[in-house]
Amino acid sequence: MGMAEIAIILDDWFEDVEYTAPATAFKEAGHNLTLIGLEEGRVVKGKRQEAEAIIQRSLEEVSVDEFDALLIPGGYSPDRLRAHNRAVEFVRDFTESGKPVFSICHAPQLLITADVIKKRQITGYKSIIQDIKNAGALFVDAEVVVDGNLVSSRNPGDLPAFIRASLKKLNE
Amino acid sequence: MGMAEIAIILDDWFEDVEYTAPATAFKEAGHNLTLIGLEEGRVVKGKRQEAEAIIQRSLEEVSVDEFDALLIPGGYSPDRLRAHNRAVEFVRDFTESGKPVFSICHAPQLLITADVIKKRQITGYKSIIQDIKNAGALFVDAEVVVDGNLVSSRNPGDLPAFIRASLKKLNE
Repeated sequence: MGMAEIAIILDDWFEDVEYTAPATAFKEAGHNLTLIGLEEGRVVKGKRQEAEAIIQRSLEEVSVDEFDALLIPGGYSPDRLRAHNRAVEFVRDFTESGKPVFSICHAPQLLITADVIKKRQITGYKSIIQDIKNAGALFVDAEVVVDGNLVSSRNPGDLPAFIRASLKKLNE
Repeated sequence: MGMAEIAIILDDWFEDVEYTAPATAFKEAGHNLTLIGLEEGRVVKGKRQEAEAIIQRSLEEVSVDEFDALLIPGGYSPDRLRAHNRAVEFVRDFTESGKPVFSICHAPQLLITADVIKKRQITGYKSIIQDIKNAGALFVDAEVVVDGNLVSSRNPGDLPAFIRASLKKLNE
């Protein structure tokens, strides 16, 4: 798709490198990134205090139409976001639109609350395996799993494969 | 039961007051507390940096028989613990023993991975409501829910009711 508009959904206690590494790779590949979250201008911090970011657009104001893909970093950011209906709705609409969704580590928690992974193949962090299965998804223990528009990985160790598969999906 | 032996299962990033408030109340009521976790002697810290504790007994070395009740504080400690089989096994065995289990906030995550809440009435933090339902439990939105040996609450605001119901359960 050439230069893609990629939304990154983020709140505090994200897994630092699961935001910074894909963001850097996407930018280097020429894509444009927009940080979306609960409040425009809010500074969100990684759980390891290695990264922080400023939310550029509030979830209240963005629409799925503005973006070509969605990245959901892990850590405890997905747990915080899924307590907010607007975050859950946006992720549901985005996933159902068929556009690429890149999900790593605890990111499937948002997809579970959005109820969009029934019968989908997906992977995620080991602590949430039971939740993924209970949500009706098909858990796969692999460094990266691609099922239609869903690209997923387990943890920071999978980042190289996750980024490769995500960039490939953006070029389909 | 007079003086009860209460195990508290804990790891880093617990919700500080969900450990300190029940622990203080249980001690004042004359009960004896033992902190159990992944490694004896390990210092675990609350996510708000307001409380820390030293693990007294490793999960590898404790048995259900030694205790009369189990407290599972919330925060991100349950997510960390449920990545370890021994923590999940202990919680499963404890819950199935019929002895009181006090669960608050994110604590049901451990009960979900242990697969012990099917058809049980339980409450928990709002971000995990979908996980609780998907696990086959009956989610109840109340400050405290008592179903047999399971006493559960939603968040720190529920602590007074949670502590009252837990102390009552210990005296049954």
